[in-house]
Amino acid sequence: MDEVFLTHLKTKFSLVFHDLSYLEEAFTHSSYVNEHRNLKLKDNERIEFLGDAVLELTVSRFLYELYPDVPEGKLTRLRATIVCEVSLSQFAKEYEFDQFIRLGKGEERMNGRKRPALLCDLFESFIGALYLDQGIDSVLFFLEQTIFPKINSGAFSHVMDHKTNLQEFLQQKGEIGIEYQLVDEIGPAHQKAFVVEVLAEGQSLGQGQGTTKKAAEQVAAENALLALLEK
Amino acid sequence: MDEVFLTHLKTKFSLVFHDLSYLEEAFTHSSYVNEHRNLKLKDNERIEFLGDAVLELTVSRFLYELYPDVPEGKLTRLRATIVCEVSLSQFAKEYEFDQFIRLGKGEERMNGRKRPALLCDLFESFIGALYLDQGIDSVLFFLEQTIFPKINSGAFSHVMDHKTNLQEFLQQKGEIGIEYQLVDEIGPAHQKAFVVEVLAEGQSLGQGQGTTKKAAEQVAAENALLALLEK
Repeated sequence: MDEVFLTHLKTKFSLVFHDLSYLEEAFTHSSYVNEHRNLKLKDNERIEFLGDAVLELTVSRFLYELYPDVPEGKLTRLRATIVCEVSLSQFAKEYEFDQFIRLGKGEERMNGRKRPALLCDLFESFIGALYLDQGIDSVLFFLEQTIFPKINSGAFSHVMDHKTNLQEFLQQKGEIGIEYQLVDEIGPAHQKAFVVEVLAEGQSLGQGQGTTKKAAEQVAAENALLALLEK
Repeated sequence: MDEVFLTHLKTKFSLVFHDLSYLEEAFTHSSYVNEHRNLKLKDNERIEFLGDAVLELTVSRFLYELYPDVPEGKLTRLRATIVCEVSLSQFAKEYEFDQFIRLGKGEERMNGRKRPALLCDLFESFIGALYLDQGIDSVLFFLEQTIFPKINSGAFSHVMDHKTNLQEFLQQKGEIGIEYQLVDEIGPAHQKAFVVEVLAEGQSLGQGQGTTKKAAEQVAAENALLALLEK
């Protein structure tokens, strides 16, 4: 394994691998294996399979504790925004993993080193290698220096705000007036639910129901977005 | 929490919960919470979110070690056959979890206690509760008594055999002759790949490529199945 990378892991994240073969496996793309069949190398796909599940759990637990009152649906959406190709490929670049993966010549020529799917897999493979080498606590130690602070600072929380999402979607085509109107209050006083309608330029885009007006607005915005995206 | 259930967990799985509130949360359906708002209960959806990720990781790790030579694609398919509604709802029934979940009256009338989606969520919630109460080692201890022996005995391995799957699919409509023919060998001698065509009653259903004839047949069968299912 590249000494520069080992030093990078040590100085930047205080990480030292015991068994370098995990790290080598994680940083070996199938295109490299195919071009060096005589070396009988392992590509990073199996270790990525494991790393993906490790990330899902560690991020899930972190979100579960960070947001004790957020319902499951929102947690799932938030997790999907963190454990996804866009985010993980950015992390791989930010932490300079992209510089150290072994690629085949063809993949290199095709700019594979910048390909988001490849970088996302690489990030998950690294997590898998760390997990196999040192267990889940070391993965948490790494995430506490990298992804968790980003989550804490609200870098992903926008996905939970459907009103903002709807606004951004509609305003792709220029300024547009969005209104939320309370159209009904249902149920007895102690179990009241509000029904809110969302309108763009006076035209209804959908309704939502919730136990507060604010919650009903979010649901209305989400329903409107879902309907617009299905068109 | 129902004493009968606590005894069941202890005698059947040697499990004793320290904090019963996790178990109560796992066995409380949202329909029950909605019908008892004054009790301010938590439903099992958040704990299910966590349990799902715990299952994914524990099953992934088990498969990773059980099948050291199986490629990632097959591991993913195998995991999906285990951590899925059909399987998990059956486990919930087999281990009698279905008898102890608290449902609302409406859900009970609608036969919710037998609904696979509800039972699948319940199984994942139980795993989440066990994880929060005692950590991942207790989850492994439970799975070693339940799901892992099933995996070991090959209860899910059929998903990895596409030739059998294709045969079963085609023979739903009666006996049918399936043939695999080698149609091409490509690449240089040290990197040879085989191309195999699968035919049913002499009609081509698809092709597959692999580094061995057997692998190429599996890919051909998988492609044929995918094409047939898309029709």
